[in-house]
Amino acid sequence: MTTLDSIQDPSDLKSCSLNELEQISDQIRAEMIDVVTQTGGHLGAGLGAVELTIALHYVFDSPNDLLVWDVGHQAYPHKLLTGRQDRFHTIRQEGGLSGFLSRDESIHDAFGAGHASTAISAALGMAVAKRLKNPKDDDRIVAIIGDGALTGGMAFEGLNNAGNLDIPFIVVLNDNEMSIAPNVGAMSKYLDRVRTDPRYTRGRDDVQAVLERLPQGELLVELGKRWKDSFKEFVYHRMMWEELGFTYLGPVAGHDIRELVAALKQAQRIDGPVFLHVVTEKGKGFPAAAYDIERSHAVSAPSKPQAKGAPPTPPKYQDVFAKTLIELAAKDDAIVGITAAMPTGTSLDKFQKVYPDRFFDVGIAEQHAVTFAGGLATQGMKPVCGIYSTFLQRAFDQVLHDVCLQKLPVVFAIDRAGFAGDDGRTHHGVFDLSYLRCLPNMTLMAPKDENELRHMIATALTIEGGPVAIRYPRGVGRGVDTDETLHTLPVGKGEILREGDDIAILAIGSMVDVAQRAAAELALDGVNAAVFNARFVKPLDREAILELAATCRAIVTIEENTEIGGFGAAVLELLAAEGVSIPVKVIGVPDRVFEQASQARLRELAGLSPDNVVATARQVLKRKPAGPATREVFSTP
Amino acid sequence: MTTLDSIQDPSDLKSCSLNELEQISDQIRAEMIDVVTQTGGHLGAGLGAVELTIALHYVFDSPNDLLVWDVGHQAYPHKLLTGRQDRFHTIRQEGGLSGFLSRDESIHDAFGAGHASTAISAALGMAVAKRLKNPKDDDRIVAIIGDGALTGGMAFEGLNNAGNLDIPFIVVLNDNEMSIAPNVGAMSKYLDRVRTDPRYTRGRDDVQAVLERLPQGELLVELGKRWKDSFKEFVYHRMMWEELGFTYLGPVAGHDIRELVAALKQAQRIDGPVFLHVVTEKGKGFPAAAYDIERSHAVSAPSKPQAKGAPPTPPKYQDVFAKTLIELAAKDDAIVGITAAMPTGTSLDKFQKVYPDRFFDVGIAEQHAVTFAGGLATQGMKPVCGIYSTFLQRAFDQVLHDVCLQKLPVVFAIDRAGFAGDDGRTHHGVFDLSYLRCLPNMTLMAPKDENELRHMIATALTIEGGPVAIRYPRGVGRGVDTDETLHTLPVGKGEILREGDDIAILAIGSMVDVAQRAAAELALDGVNAAVFNARFVKPLDREAILELAATCRAIVTIEENTEIGGFGAAVLELLAAEGVSIPVKVIGVPDRVFEQASQARLRELAGLSPDNVVATARQVLKRKPAGPATREVFSTP
Repeated sequence: MTTLDSIQDPSDLKSCSLNELEQISDQIRAEMIDVVTQTGGHLGAGLGAVELTIALHYVFDSPNDLLVWDVGHQAYPHKLLTGRQDRFHTIRQEGGLSGFLSRDESIHDAFGAGHASTAISAALGMAVAKRLKNPKDDDRIVAIIGDGALTGGMAFEGLNNAGNLDIPFIVVLNDNEMSIAPNVGAMSKYLDRVRTDPRYTRGRDDVQAVLERLPQGELLVELGKRWKDSFKEFVYHRMMWEELGFTYLGPVAGHDIRELVAALKQAQRIDGPVFLHVVTEKGKGFPAAAYDIERSHAVSAPSKPQAKGAPPTPPKYQDVFAKTLIELAAKDDAIVGITAAMPTGTSLDKFQKVYPDRFFDVGIAEQHAVTFAGGLATQGMKPVCGIYSTFLQRAFDQVLHDVCLQKLPVVFAIDRAGFAGDDGRTHHGVFDLSYLRCLPNMTLMAPKDENELRHMIATALTIEGGPVAIRYPRGVGRGVDTDETLHTLPVGKGEILREGDDIAILAIGSMVDVAQRAAAELALDGVNAAVFNARFVKPLDREAILELAATCRAIVTIEENTEIGGFGAAVLELLAAEGVSIPVKVIGVPDRVFEQASQARLRELAGLSPDNVVATARQVLKRKPAGPATREVFSTP
Repeated sequence: MTTLDSIQDPSDLKSCSLNELEQISDQIRAEMIDVVTQTGGHLGAGLGAVELTIALHYVFDSPNDLLVWDVGHQAYPHKLLTGRQDRFHTIRQEGGLSGFLSRDESIHDAFGAGHASTAISAALGMAVAKRLKNPKDDDRIVAIIGDGALTGGMAFEGLNNAGNLDIPFIVVLNDNEMSIAPNVGAMSKYLDRVRTDPRYTRGRDDVQAVLERLPQGELLVELGKRWKDSFKEFVYHRMMWEELGFTYLGPVAGHDIRELVAALKQAQRIDGPVFLHVVTEKGKGFPAAAYDIERSHAVSAPSKPQAKGAPPTPPKYQDVFAKTLIELAAKDDAIVGITAAMPTGTSLDKFQKVYPDRFFDVGIAEQHAVTFAGGLATQGMKPVCGIYSTFLQRAFDQVLHDVCLQKLPVVFAIDRAGFAGDDGRTHHGVFDLSYLRCLPNMTLMAPKDENELRHMIATALTIEGGPVAIRYPRGVGRGVDTDETLHTLPVGKGEILREGDDIAILAIGSMVDVAQRAAAELALDGVNAAVFNARFVKPLDREAILELAATCRAIVTIEENTEIGGFGAAVLELLAAEGVSIPVKVIGVPDRVFEQASQARLRELAGLSPDNVVATARQVLKRKPAGPATREVFSTP
């Protein structure tokens, strides 16, 4: 009897009976629920994909055949079947397994994936490459994509291209009826119609009976024929995919391994692009996950019980954002909220509850979200796009081309800026200060705490002549008191939080706290450090920074953003332009890839810590003053 | 008799008879051909949209109704009908009309558009805004999009969202059978089937006869019914759009004003999303344009006759790129070329002729192009993506998430880097050094001339462990001799082109020439300027730059890229990290929006000129040396 424990490689599944496969699926489900409810992680998508994953590895021969999983939330069962059972309990933890796919992690992870909608394009590249290398290659490339990810434009770009290339290539739609948020687009409605079509339901009921009468492999063909003959309009549903050049198979019951294996074998035999529609149930086998989709998208590890008398947990930045926006929207009809499939992640669902008509979830479609906001702004609305830093990368061109160049007052509320923590490399939002700062007409700020976030949102909505971006971290605020009354901040002005004349620590956003701690530590040594909360990365507070440069002996800048081209570079550019010569040390996220770990740990690893600021300050202050020439070389390579 | 001359506002069309409208269409066509063959510009798309534009302005009431043109190549007739006849001869020239839409230019340009596929999203934003402001608003919002732009993923994101919102909203597909390059995707094949459907052809032939028998407004309904009844499968074609939630109308003969007006009036009456499919002929009325699509996409102004004995025109950078790639591909089967609808613009069409199986035009789909390349690279291929700098912005996230993070060896041949010239603000490629430099694992270079480009391509294809981007300008090279034999350049190493100890001019790419000229001019004054061709922006040649900083009194950096976060910032970051104090002046494209003008003029306007380098060098050298403190403040704000 083969059990999950004995599956060290997906090829071990080949010798299993269908009954054994079913038992393994139960074991995978139990293991996932057991581990993820302990460690935290994404549960719903993976639970929905258990039988599909088993069937894929049973029919195909990874890594010769390539399975390309989109996003990777759905890939936990895949990890359990590809030699990673022993380490499964380390998922999303420092030094442990990634919560997504990773080519570094397994030969069976054909393509890394943290952002949605990429699998079809990547898989198509692989299929073309295999064919170019060997025209007789009959390995199969399978992209497995969720219905939510299908709303992303690049998935369509990939489908459009794939349908045209006459090569074997399989797209499996893992249609679990829900992406992170209820799908809101037309595509979702279409899939709903297919799912609720009585012919499909009836078809499923008949499957068992039909199975007994037909040779297994021919089932779907026969089923297709029957449906086509008996229900001509059924063709209607598959037309859309066939129009795009795919052979459409399905819908297949996604928790019936027998049906799945038959459908995949059928897909395997077709010598061109195949679209296989599999209907699954998110959170299958764990009712809580199915019921509470929001929670099961990413289950957090159980939090430690709060000690008696401990201060209450500060509110999350995202909640402060939503609360503030709701307050402002009460007085201004023009304010609308937009999210790209992250209503709960951005807390805009709270805004939606109060202003359902002024809330728009456009699906996984950041490009559209931004240009849609631009269109709204042309008509005098004040659109606020709540988008994670890492996902706003998808809309970089739209921010520039459709918003900045046209000076449209769109507000970008950039959540998860800085380290994302356990989501790891694909989700760290450590580039936004650099990629947004270089755009004309952009105003760019970051609050030092949740109270400042409130005033920044109020400020952003008063700025005309271009977009405003406010970036703030994942997680809870600093626990400061928040003002009831909102006011606007002077644009392009920071604040001195601590006077000092030895060294100036210029900090932005989440790093202001670190700067203050470092200054306190330096004071113990008699080093008098000024702390400057920049608030604005663009426009920079030139006056205050030049004044600090004139009164201090050195400057340290710190930001939770790549050390390249961000806040520190802005300070260097200002000083160079003004001809100010003063030693400056830029502290930012080092120019390399960071894996998952807690946010605190990642900041530590990246040198975004009071200790590193102190060490850097001491180092730069130790330098000898310059000689008569205007330069001083402290080290040579 | 109303003529084009008397149309000062689109409302003037309202009183015209259909016959007059037809005559005006002839006049528009004549004017366009007359002007554009003189001044240069985009001809084919506009000629195909003449009747459609007239019909739109006849039926709708701009600017109350909003016409949102995608890309804007098709909008020349719109410009002629909206008060811009007098200035039409200035199109794409400095101080003249933009070659695209611009909200600054006319109240009838509802949304600026230089990049493709944005109109649906922007128009949907407008439609939603109008409705939020006044639920009884019955203004109509019309997005007009070409079939090529429809392959862009964000167009699909917009359609998907629009189909779900139950508000009046019209998408007109201007299906001119050709985008810039022959459409290659499945969408194109689908549209082809519709176009070549005998029922459609027959329908068109019958239109005249039917018209005489039916009340005009009912024509399409009736036609639809007839087709539906008689040819049940015709429904097949419109299914795709109806699945997405749109009422599908068409196909309509796009050069028949009568038919267009009837269809648009029909669309106007429908209280939900409408998809109107209009079939037009690119270059209609100018056979040369229709025949030679590539040429007519953007007609260049007639060039001046070459003087006898003048040196031959240097080759274009894009041609040197293609030629070199062809040479390299002869020896390396793994090399493949990828373009996103720009085969002629990138000269990859030349590669296609030699290696048709190793060439992929994926359509207007930059996101897919990049991730597709990533997929190819995982299988050992060496994909080279030829993409314009401004269009690579569309794939920013894919470059990071799918290529950099996975260290995949994809080569980006970034054409049109720097000022784009007459295409203006939406097309200037002046951000790439900033948005690519901040990405981990990226190698980034720019050649000083066409010969160096050759060796850089050869070098790029040898670099492993991550992507390589080479950015080069639009237009012809410097006319240098090109080496027959290719060699690789040392990675991360620049070259000293001129020794000097007063000031070091550090230049990248197109600005090396400017630096050399400036140095020659400075030499006349006795200023001894070193000129350094950096070649690599990442990794930077730290050793050479630090050596120059140690031997010169000041540094000037120059790049044809925004002055924010690019090459100059890289130099500042290096010097700060190494504790080197030396006056540095960064010259780059100022942080504002530049309109169209010749590339030479734009460089002049941006200060990317020998004169400005000389002036900057003199200014920085005049400064007093620093006193005993390590700082010197040359100016305060």
